[in-house]
Amino acid sequence: MGKDDVIESGGAGGGEFAAKDYTDPPPAPLIDAAELGSWSLYRAVIAEFIATLLFLYITVLTVIGYKHQTDANLAGTDACGGVGVLGIAWAFGGMIFVLVYCTAGISGGHINPAVTFGLFLARKVSLVRAVLYIVAQCLGAICGVGLVKAFQRAYFDRYGGGANSLADGYSKGTGLGAEIVGTFVLVYTVFSATDPKRNARDSHVPVLAPLPIGFAVFMVHLATIPVTGTGINPARSLGAAVIYNKDKPWDDHWIFWVGPLVGAAIAAFYHQYILRAGAIKALGSFRSNA
Amino acid sequence: MGKDDVIESGGAGGGEFAAKDYTDPPPAPLIDAAELGSWSLYRAVIAEFIATLLFLYITVLTVIGYKHQTDANLAGTDACGGVGVLGIAWAFGGMIFVLVYCTAGISGGHINPAVTFGLFLARKVSLVRAVLYIVAQCLGAICGVGLVKAFQRAYFDRYGGGANSLADGYSKGTGLGAEIVGTFVLVYTVFSATDPKRNARDSHVPVLAPLPIGFAVFMVHLATIPVTGTGINPARSLGAAVIYNKDKPWDDHWIFWVGPLVGAAIAAFYHQYILRAGAIKALGSFRSNA
Amino acid sequence: MGKDDVIESGGAGGGEFAAKDYTDPPPAPLIDAAELGSWSLYRAVIAEFIATLLFLYITVLTVIGYKHQTDANLAGTDACGGVGVLGIAWAFGGMIFVLVYCTAGISGGHINPAVTFGLFLARKVSLVRAVLYIVAQCLGAICGVGLVKAFQRAYFDRYGGGANSLADGYSKGTGLGAEIVGTFVLVYTVFSATDPKRNARDSHVPVLAPLPIGFAVFMVHLATIPVTGTGINPARSLGAAVIYNKDKPWDDHWIFWVGPLVGAAIAAFYHQYILRAGAIKALGSFRSNA
Amino acid sequence: MGKDDVIESGGAGGGEFAAKDYTDPPPAPLIDAAELGSWSLYRAVIAEFIATLLFLYITVLTVIGYKHQTDANLAGTDACGGVGVLGIAWAFGGMIFVLVYCTAGISGGHINPAVTFGLFLARKVSLVRAVLYIVAQCLGAICGVGLVKAFQRAYFDRYGGGANSLADGYSKGTGLGAEIVGTFVLVYTVFSATDPKRNARDSHVPVLAPLPIGFAVFMVHLATIPVTGTGINPARSLGAAVIYNKDKPWDDHWIFWVGPLVGAAIAAFYHQYILRAGAIKALGSFRSNA
Repeated sequence: MGKDDVIESGGAGGGEFAAKDYTDPPPAPLIDAAELGSWSLYRAVIAEFIATLLFLYITVLTVIGYKHQTDANLAGTDACGGVGVLGIAWAFGGMIFVLVYCTAGISGGHINPAVTFGLFLARKVSLVRAVLYIVAQCLGAICGVGLVKAFQRAYFDRYGGGANSLADGYSKGTGLGAEIVGTFVLVYTVFSATDPKRNARDSHVPVLAPLPIGFAVFMVHLATIPVTGTGINPARSLGAAVIYNKDKPWDDHWIFWVGPLVGAAIAAFYHQYILRAGAIKALGSFRSNA
Repeated sequence: MGKDDVIESGGAGGGEFAAKDYTDPPPAPLIDAAELGSWSLYRAVIAEFIATLLFLYITVLTVIGYKHQTDANLAGTDACGGVGVLGIAWAFGGMIFVLVYCTAGISGGHINPAVTFGLFLARKVSLVRAVLYIVAQCLGAICGVGLVKAFQRAYFDRYGGGANSLADGYSKGTGLGAEIVGTFVLVYTVFSATDPKRNARDSHVPVLAPLPIGFAVFMVHLATIPVTGTGINPARSLGAAVIYNKDKPWDDHWIFWVGPLVGAAIAAFYHQYILRAGAIKALGSFRSNA
Repeated sequence: MGKDDVIESGGAGGGEFAAKDYTDPPPAPLIDAAELGSWSLYRAVIAEFIATLLFLYITVLTVIGYKHQTDANLAGTDACGGVGVLGIAWAFGGMIFVLVYCTAGISGGHINPAVTFGLFLARKVSLVRAVLYIVAQCLGAICGVGLVKAFQRAYFDRYGGGANSLADGYSKGTGLGAEIVGTFVLVYTVFSATDPKRNARDSHVPVLAPLPIGFAVFMVHLATIPVTGTGINPARSLGAAVIYNKDKPWDDHWIFWVGPLVGAAIAAFYHQYILRAGAIKALGSFRSNA
Repeated sequence: MGKDDVIESGGAGGGEFAAKDYTDPPPAPLIDAAELGSWSLYRAVIAEFIATLLFLYITVLTVIGYKHQTDANLAGTDACGGVGVLGIAWAFGGMIFVLVYCTAGISGGHINPAVTFGLFLARKVSLVRAVLYIVAQCLGAICGVGLVKAFQRAYFDRYGGGANSLADGYSKGTGLGAEIVGTFVLVYTVFSATDPKRNARDSHVPVLAPLPIGFAVFMVHLATIPVTGTGINPARSLGAAVIYNKDKPWDDHWIFWVGPLVGAAIAAFYHQYILRAGAIKALGSFRSNA
């Protein structure tokens, strides 16, 4: 089957392949001994550490700088002088775009324990790799926020340290729900962008994938910054909580692990059992390209 | 004819193919019995439902959160603290980009009854598929806004529930016109991005298509949020009207069905009879690549 | 020579082809009789008309809506409620991205007499095509602004009708200079994106070209809205001046023709005689890929 | 090995090639005599000069225009009327996207002495080319800011001339650290986007590379405008300091050379010795695609 045959219109009607012209990689083993002896694993772990560090550094620095500029208690401040909530949402989404682009070829570009967990559930990464990634992400996040605190000694504590906690007037259930749906949006986008079926049709999809993934993060921040400050990334929430280290963020901290992990699990289930299972069942039933 | 031969410069002068080196798919039948027995149809309907739910959830949550943050009647609010109308426009456009990207391979990525209607008029989807999609989109929109109401019990009604209605000082005719032109911009972009003639030249266009489609939605929101709040998507307007359920949105509701459907029909006509008919008539008359 | 051979790294050092493995199309004739008998020419003119109409409609509606929302003389207005100058700049840049994407395959996606003039100077389009495009662009712009006036009867005149004129405190020379440099940025980007040499290396560049072109427009608006309101498109300035029809925009109107046409001419010269002539002289002198 | 074989999923797990199916170009010589006789070198130097001139012109004009619009000491100003810090960050990032896109095929699209220095350290460009580029970038930046001063005679000095200096309340060490990490983010993105290993897999990556590079610049500006005004480009800082020519920017000026050059060196080290060295060590140890 030639290359042109496998390109679909994609715009209308959503066709189906007559036969499986893509290959699902086999499920990743839980523990892959060969992987442990490979430099590429440790290189990937280093890349996840550095990327999560840079992610938290840029985003939390943006939050602190914005809050300082618009602090009404200071003389000479300008209420409209900061980047705004829109700028903060861009910082989170834009950094994910840049960092997923940079690390996709090295580590897969997770930069988020919820993404790693979702891909582990779908058997895309081994247990060993998943655990090492999550540890690296959490350490990177702590170092990134620590760097902000070192640079912003005067303002870091005053402006909340970028820590996630429930806004006044919202119940814990609402916060948890917001984190679940928000992470679902992100992890669903990650699965859609890295689907091997998609790759078979459009060989350059992985290169474009970081842009919608970054936009998904941007969108969720626009919607839920007023509710929880937006976690959808347990490493991000942990890093800020560890360095800020106040009661309120720690009290709410479980929300920012349970919500993202549940949302990622639902997204993995939706993609593997609803969208992809369909691909298997449909073989032979619908042949738009045949 | 080799692959390189079918690539045009596209930048100047707009050439024409000497012969039809792309294939128009045959018009979709009104009722396709085989389609009804295919899992891929139902999977596509589920994907449209989930995508429209997520679209309304993120966008209406952004609207409510913004209005709460900037409510001048509350103590401690910051007039410039929210994401602004610009952030709201980004939420609508950005979500369409993300969701069209995610669902393009499954359902074609309509997420909007006006898009489905336009593609049905151009015989790109069957009647059965169009009806099922529109029902799924409307139910998804209702559920998405319902989720926002559940999460924002205190603020949802106070801040208008994201419902579309005419702003003060605009006539019904103006609102209808704004919806018609706005939907024309969107559906014209959808047709341009998914044209099989374009695909023949640039096999990767469908992958890039979600970005201009999302930008078209962003642009129309910048322009018409002050006039109608911007519908251009009957499912979006219906979902918000059903959950908010006040007189004013229901009184104006017909505008947000008639306008988008008329705009989509004009875009389908423009694309099929002006732009594409030209391609047929021109065969043999102009051979820039020959 | 295989496909992989013609791909350069593009990131460092800017190589050169050992031999001319791309074909410059021959210069367009001034008057092409065959072209006049071709439907594709008239279709392209229609597409330019519609695209310029939609461009002015969306952008001027955004300008008027923003000024109404933030009018300090009205009760109940919100100083931060509009999309801001940033939103206006996005409206201009984003619409150019969307419309160039939609019309690139039909008309080349000019939507601007300065772009048409620059491409005519570089002999990329015939004189006949250039004249017809410019007429269509001007008529489209007038109709687009007229549509805004019809929809915004109450506010159109009060908020300046989106017309270009010099801001207070700037001399005519400054305004002219700002228009020249701004249009140079735009037309330089257009030439860079549609260079056939580039196409030879990266066959999909034309598909991506609308995004940097749109961003160039966005950038120039950020910089020069405070100076001239930003023309860089004589059709845009003419359309607004005709419908608004007040002395001040007409007095300054020549700036918005002379500036863009001079800027486009300099960009055409820079691209054809500095950047491309280099390619010819360099043959045989530098062989990074050989 | 066929084209499809070298495409990786990129989304999960970060595979490795079984054998080196890409070619690292040989290290650039320090002085390449043939290069000096080549027009393509001088053309590249001209392109760097023009691009840096346009970069500074657009960005500093945006800064001055914004500060004028929001000056609380002037009657009739609108505190929220300007493009905001978000708009300024967009101006820097968006111009880098546009200009890297335009000049990538001519000069490699550096537009920044720190980028040139990093690529020189990695032996991607010769010493002669690096020195000529840096001189051209500095002269271009001075001319670009000079053009802004000529156009904005009344406001240029009053609003700080776009010069970089430490904000009140930050130590020199903090400013230096912010410049180092910010430049690391930029140069790391440049290396990731132009890696020949990446090119082997995704032949069109260079075409897409300008977008994440531009976003990296946008992100760093969001984060560090409140600290140093954001340099991460010694030519940009030098150009503004020369034209503005006041004590404070000159006193802090060393930070905007030392910081970016150190950050670029660390990024070059990280890419060449951690990420790429891994590729060499890993040969034979991990064969996900074999």
